[in-house]
Amino acid sequence: MEVVGNRSTMLLMREAYYGTTRFDDFARRVGITEAATSARLKDLLRAGLLRREPYREPGQRTRHAYALTEMGRELMPALIALMQWGDRYLADEDGPPLALEHTACGAPVAVSVRCTQGHEVPLDELTVRRAPKVQR
Amino acid sequence: MEVVGNRSTMLLMREAYYGTTRFDDFARRVGITEAATSARLKDLLRAGLLRREPYREPGQRTRHAYALTEMGRELMPALIALMQWGDRYLADEDGPPLALEHTACGAPVAVSVRCTQGHEVPLDELTVRRAPKVQR
Repeated sequence: MEVVGNRSTMLLMREAYYGTTRFDDFARRVGITEAATSARLKDLLRAGLLRREPYREPGQRTRHAYALTEMGRELMPALIALMQWGDRYLADEDGPPLALEHTACGAPVAVSVRCTQGHEVPLDELTVRRAPKVQR
Repeated sequence: MEVVGNRSTMLLMREAYYGTTRFDDFARRVGITEAATSARLKDLLRAGLLRREPYREPGQRTRHAYALTEMGRELMPALIALMQWGDRYLADEDGPPLALEHTACGAPVAVSVRCTQGHEVPLDELTVRRAPKVQR
């Protein structure tokens, strides 16, 4: 998934998670040129992470809004895990740039690795194996 | 983090999680040239995800083994989350290539988003805000 490694693309996805939908807002908030915004948004559309919807304000021409697809929304746990890791190992002296909270209770949010029995799984208790091929 | 977006680099990390430590095994298992293996392992050393340790077998010259650093090991939850997402949205008809299990109980493993109060946090109950700068 090429888009995961591109910095501008990931910053656009972060804005999409915040609720940004308009081209101009994406360009301004990420701080990249219109040409770069256009190219990276196209990458995200092609990858299936965003979709484009027409909208029109009175007296204006039709424009497009960019919304997260289900596939795009579901990438968030992976990005939270990456963020958490970056906060721990790559943060500068100002500390982490963003805080995540559970809206309902206000407690800090983190990604954890668990099994379906509900156990928290430390990395040294993780077995990785090749999955059997699905029979069709 | 440039290394996260590079396919060969991520395949090398996957081998490292399996326990691969030797140059020749990395090259053969990932299926890339020695030159590419060397360049991508250097990227991972520079990024702090792997470290290099000398070892020597009787009658052989000194060689180097590549081991995960703590920082490299701790990237695993993010990679598991990405894998999980890929299994759901990008898997071909053979199904997911890998299965993760909790070694102790054999149950399937997944990444979940939780708050410190122990609630599972759906993505629409997640508040993202700019963190206050750390006072020093």
